[in-house]
Amino acid sequence: MSSTFGTTLRVTVFGQSHSQAIGCVVEGFPSGIVVDRKRLERFMARRAPGRGSWTTPRKEADLPNFVSGLNMRGATCGAPLCAVIENTNTRSGDYDNLLRVPRPGHADFTAEQKWHGNQDVPGGGHFSGRLTAPLCVAGGIALQYLEERGVHIGAHLLSVGAACDKPFAALDNTERGRKTLERQLEALADGRAFPTLSESAAAAMLNEIDKARQALDSVGGVIECVATGMPAGVGSPMFDGVENAIARAAFGIPAVKGIEFGRGFEAARLRGSQNNDPYRMTSEGAAPQTNNAGGALGGITTGAPVLFRLAIKPTPSISRPQESVDLSANKNEELEIRGRHDPCIAPRAVPVAEAVCALALLDCILSFPAEIQD
Amino acid sequence: MSSTFGTTLRVTVFGQSHSQAIGCVVEGFPSGIVVDRKRLERFMARRAPGRGSWTTPRKEADLPNFVSGLNMRGATCGAPLCAVIENTNTRSGDYDNLLRVPRPGHADFTAEQKWHGNQDVPGGGHFSGRLTAPLCVAGGIALQYLEERGVHIGAHLLSVGAACDKPFAALDNTERGRKTLERQLEALADGRAFPTLSESAAAAMLNEIDKARQALDSVGGVIECVATGMPAGVGSPMFDGVENAIARAAFGIPAVKGIEFGRGFEAARLRGSQNNDPYRMTSEGAAPQTNNAGGALGGITTGAPVLFRLAIKPTPSISRPQESVDLSANKNEELEIRGRHDPCIAPRAVPVAEAVCALALLDCILSFPAEIQD
Amino acid sequence: MSSTFGTTLRVTVFGQSHSQAIGCVVEGFPSGIVVDRKRLERFMARRAPGRGSWTTPRKEADLPNFVSGLNMRGATCGAPLCAVIENTNTRSGDYDNLLRVPRPGHADFTAEQKWHGNQDVPGGGHFSGRLTAPLCVAGGIALQYLEERGVHIGAHLLSVGAACDKPFAALDNTERGRKTLERQLEALADGRAFPTLSESAAAAMLNEIDKARQALDSVGGVIECVATGMPAGVGSPMFDGVENAIARAAFGIPAVKGIEFGRGFEAARLRGSQNNDPYRMTSEGAAPQTNNAGGALGGITTGAPVLFRLAIKPTPSISRPQESVDLSANKNEELEIRGRHDPCIAPRAVPVAEAVCALALLDCILSFPAEIQD
Amino acid sequence: MSSTFGTTLRVTVFGQSHSQAIGCVVEGFPSGIVVDRKRLERFMARRAPGRGSWTTPRKEADLPNFVSGLNMRGATCGAPLCAVIENTNTRSGDYDNLLRVPRPGHADFTAEQKWHGNQDVPGGGHFSGRLTAPLCVAGGIALQYLEERGVHIGAHLLSVGAACDKPFAALDNTERGRKTLERQLEALADGRAFPTLSESAAAAMLNEIDKARQALDSVGGVIECVATGMPAGVGSPMFDGVENAIARAAFGIPAVKGIEFGRGFEAARLRGSQNNDPYRMTSEGAAPQTNNAGGALGGITTGAPVLFRLAIKPTPSISRPQESVDLSANKNEELEIRGRHDPCIAPRAVPVAEAVCALALLDCILSFPAEIQD
Repeated sequence: MSSTFGTTLRVTVFGQSHSQAIGCVVEGFPSGIVVDRKRLERFMARRAPGRGSWTTPRKEADLPNFVSGLNMRGATCGAPLCAVIENTNTRSGDYDNLLRVPRPGHADFTAEQKWHGNQDVPGGGHFSGRLTAPLCVAGGIALQYLEERGVHIGAHLLSVGAACDKPFAALDNTERGRKTLERQLEALADGRAFPTLSESAAAAMLNEIDKARQALDSVGGVIECVATGMPAGVGSPMFDGVENAIARAAFGIPAVKGIEFGRGFEAARLRGSQNNDPYRMTSEGAAPQTNNAGGALGGITTGAPVLFRLAIKPTPSISRPQESVDLSANKNEELEIRGRHDPCIAPRAVPVAEAVCALALLDCILSFPAEIQD
Repeated sequence: MSSTFGTTLRVTVFGQSHSQAIGCVVEGFPSGIVVDRKRLERFMARRAPGRGSWTTPRKEADLPNFVSGLNMRGATCGAPLCAVIENTNTRSGDYDNLLRVPRPGHADFTAEQKWHGNQDVPGGGHFSGRLTAPLCVAGGIALQYLEERGVHIGAHLLSVGAACDKPFAALDNTERGRKTLERQLEALADGRAFPTLSESAAAAMLNEIDKARQALDSVGGVIECVATGMPAGVGSPMFDGVENAIARAAFGIPAVKGIEFGRGFEAARLRGSQNNDPYRMTSEGAAPQTNNAGGALGGITTGAPVLFRLAIKPTPSISRPQESVDLSANKNEELEIRGRHDPCIAPRAVPVAEAVCALALLDCILSFPAEIQD
Repeated sequence: MSSTFGTTLRVTVFGQSHSQAIGCVVEGFPSGIVVDRKRLERFMARRAPGRGSWTTPRKEADLPNFVSGLNMRGATCGAPLCAVIENTNTRSGDYDNLLRVPRPGHADFTAEQKWHGNQDVPGGGHFSGRLTAPLCVAGGIALQYLEERGVHIGAHLLSVGAACDKPFAALDNTERGRKTLERQLEALADGRAFPTLSESAAAAMLNEIDKARQALDSVGGVIECVATGMPAGVGSPMFDGVENAIARAAFGIPAVKGIEFGRGFEAARLRGSQNNDPYRMTSEGAAPQTNNAGGALGGITTGAPVLFRLAIKPTPSISRPQESVDLSANKNEELEIRGRHDPCIAPRAVPVAEAVCALALLDCILSFPAEIQD
Repeated sequence: MSSTFGTTLRVTVFGQSHSQAIGCVVEGFPSGIVVDRKRLERFMARRAPGRGSWTTPRKEADLPNFVSGLNMRGATCGAPLCAVIENTNTRSGDYDNLLRVPRPGHADFTAEQKWHGNQDVPGGGHFSGRLTAPLCVAGGIALQYLEERGVHIGAHLLSVGAACDKPFAALDNTERGRKTLERQLEALADGRAFPTLSESAAAAMLNEIDKARQALDSVGGVIECVATGMPAGVGSPMFDGVENAIARAAFGIPAVKGIEFGRGFEAARLRGSQNNDPYRMTSEGAAPQTNNAGGALGGITTGAPVLFRLAIKPTPSISRPQESVDLSANKNEELEIRGRHDPCIAPRAVPVAEAVCALALLDCILSFPAEIQD
């Protein structure tokens, strides 16, 4: 069992939904990073519940306590950083029958197949979406470090159900495209409650979510994430490229069912002459003029924006009765899930995508940088 | 730099397109596997060039020489297995200007950014699609081992350009769906030259490929891959689940730009009530009745087929003139790529998808099995 | 930077001497281990300060708080186990000049060379011997698990300065030797304050330690550790054998400067006919009759006791004035270290050796077991 | 099963004594290293058999064939380097009964416990000392790279049986000590057939070996290895320090039974005031004046020479009859090993120690360098 990823920058996530605490240990942060806690809190707030009609009411502050890894000046000191977030909502008896009747779409059934009753079930245990909070702590620090070095990462909701936002201008790598993208990233950083580029898209998506909730149902979505300013030459061929690294980490976010880079699945319908990115000389040297590749060729960055999309499935917890089984009695059983749940998990997963992107890219920079020319 | 993946079963791929040889080292195969070489050759033949109008003429036999890892009876012996495939087509001067003028869509440019002239350029070097041959050697052995244990893996072309095959029946996990899928896998194993379920789809795809070639162009496609018979409870939460493992390995196949499991990106448009897989008691115990999850929840297998799709971009080598740059002269330059190239790489990538699937799943079985109940 | 070891069973140690807390995350414990806390506390107490004249007075209870990884029954649940030990003695100004004047024998100087002032210095930071407390938490659980499966681990002080204990009877693998060893391990488990086999050795060692303290000095020692009941066939050739695993982990204990297995350095003076362990049939099958190999050949266990010794250097903190430098002023300076320190760290390192042995061997059992015969 | 070590620089060794070939794959060499083959051959020759009365007659040239990893100029190109050494002496029937009657001191018995008859037995299979040849290929390249950067590595025989060489002057880190050590390393590099500092020691050791051979026996020895010029600040606390890395790799050399750094086991008998290394200002900055620590504190280099010693057990193959068992008949049996064997393996292990030291230290430099000051 491993809840760790990364090579030089290694992130381990621990905790269960109802254990005493959740948290992360990060090894390999460069020393001297002074964590801006206010900024980290604002970043964490974006994934916290309670920010609008699409999420459950806020219950916990979810602020991390850094129990190790910082020196007396509050800067990373080279030793492993451990952040702990207390669970105030621990151990309740409400979930006892989850061991017995697995919820469709959750990991209750597979955990039982693996651990035969030893798994910690309440609230989803170690599989809970709550575990993305420590991922955001680690990723939030990586984001701060990267931004100081000119790497900017942002994500938005590209779609919820049938409602779509306009995409990032990241397929156009001319100066014009880059400027548009820059404006888009700045716009997203203005603290908007709902992460879309277009306001009308936000309204349409909120409507999709409302309809799902009213139908005692949930709905999925697509997140688009981009990183600008990545130096060229970062990554590695074959199995340690930036795509491998981001993909491996992204599938650690609960509910992610797909990932694509650049044109992604659309490229399968294109001709080579449409999909290849031509090179031109620019004031900053040779560069691809389009970015259908999504910022990487052969696993190594081109210098164009790293661009990917994540498919987020609809929240598995829905209020409708569902078909399940009673594993102790070996018979079919109808299941009704009580309590409030997000009718769409995608909005709160947007900062998590940014966090994962930052951690994977920073690890690539630290582990597989462009070699220094003698 | 690392061209290795896996935890207990570790595969390292070595070689460049024009180096003396290419090959792989596999650590962690269980001992006692007697490699069926005839069968391995048939499997390798599926990715070899020269099988039809959609590929370049065959040049090399590409048969592996096992220089270590087998005992005197030809069975794996616990020591690392090393397979070597000689390159007959080595070191030519034809490609000298590749260091100078990077081919769009290839890794020439990014390799230069990383290694500043030290990279081995001819034929794509270590980035060449030829490196999938040793991946198929390793995967072909894993496939044989898995099949003896009831795990069957098969893949087909789901689409080429606009032409589509019918999908696997893997979203239906009732007995009926399972039987249909079984028949589909048997049909694919009959040695057909072009890997589709439907003959008319094959014709339409070949037509797409022909049109692309006639236009001095290339075209992309989508591969669908499925594994049946996987025991439930295999995998790990968060970052070492079956999806993480398959995704990390799959992005090691050149030209892969996206991966999705089960309903994948389609799930983003669904309601929870449509996407959740209800459980029912069957003669073999509790099981999900649909398989929108693609065989895994929380990174751990459900016992339903593991199902994923790969987006394959169009072959970057096209015969049309393309815009590029002369990196030594810092000026724009038009590039014309000579020689014959596959107008669509997707058909030959089908067995590679099976190989990667087999290696990733066998590694999950060996590294993260369901625990044994006392 | 990595403070992690292990393959399937991965232990990460975090914390600094004066950070808010220290602790560990352990991934890969089999599920269902019910931690016996009383027993763990007794084990932890053996490395705690304050048990006798050879250590500093006790200050802290050092009891671990399991914030994750246990289910509602207090058993391991498959998710990462995180244990946190609060530091009550945090952040003091006493150590400010350590950044300036490095203590000989400590890591102050090398940390400065690596992190250029960002390191956390007070109390030794992440290099502090205090970090062995979480190592004992992880190892204490591994010891409990192994004992239930018949693997018994014990260690004693073989020497302190010039005073020597009698060695374990572990080089004799006949029934007689095994029984003697069993009695020795039982004797050590009786709760004795000072870990030697012979009482007179304890007195002589205490005398050595007293003399060192009176001379405002410190003294080193040798720890001997043994594991009985290890099944044969565990481990791996070359770089993942039991010796490699134990050695890598053991050098993670501060002050360890050497390790040897079986006859160790003495074997360099022997003839092959003296050092080879002859096999004989016994009531339990074939077995080596002597154990000069220390329980492993080619990295794989023989079934005889795993036996190793660790060289522990004298505590670097001594009360005498020492020669050092002022790194900010670039001039020589005399250093006087204040406060109380153990004049000999070896007695408290004895349980740490057992912990590391248990973790390394359990990882070998989980990662590299003897294959199951079909 | 894993025959791999290293983090950024990863070395995998493959092959069996009588397989078609042996070799290694190295990932992570910086690009642009032009391998000096003549020099590599001279280095390889030091471990080859046939150089004197203490070894078996030379049979094979053992020159590596680089099948991948070099570009057209013969320089490392960033892709994995694979070196293959053909085995001319393959597959013979002479060793058939080894599966039945395990040789004391070899891994025959433990391999049987692990693989139950699937292991490749002839010549020791994957456990053969022959596998140190590819280790010397990888290490020989690392040595060349390090030397160009001012890191010099050398080893000698400190003892064989009771005969001793004088030690390296590496415990004295004053200018005088450093100069003496430099002269010692130069002296060893003069191509002497037998690796000692003193000629009389060589004579005494050869006499020890002769006596052992005449007695149909073998004898062990101690190797001392040193690396000068290592920059300070390299390595990592706890489990990825230079001592952990060297120790893990060194126990991959067959016959190594112990390792110690600096004063090693002797430090256990010393006082802190004797063992601590005082700092003084020198013309090159602050530096320890003695080097009892062996070049590392807290796992991180001090800038003083990295110094360690390896205990090498006597060759297990001896011509005397030995007690063993017949595993198929479950009865005791007397074993006589035929053929010629080195009566002392230690002289040929000297370059292997250098190889392992170079690989471990280069990996530390690449993976855990001193951070760059902004």
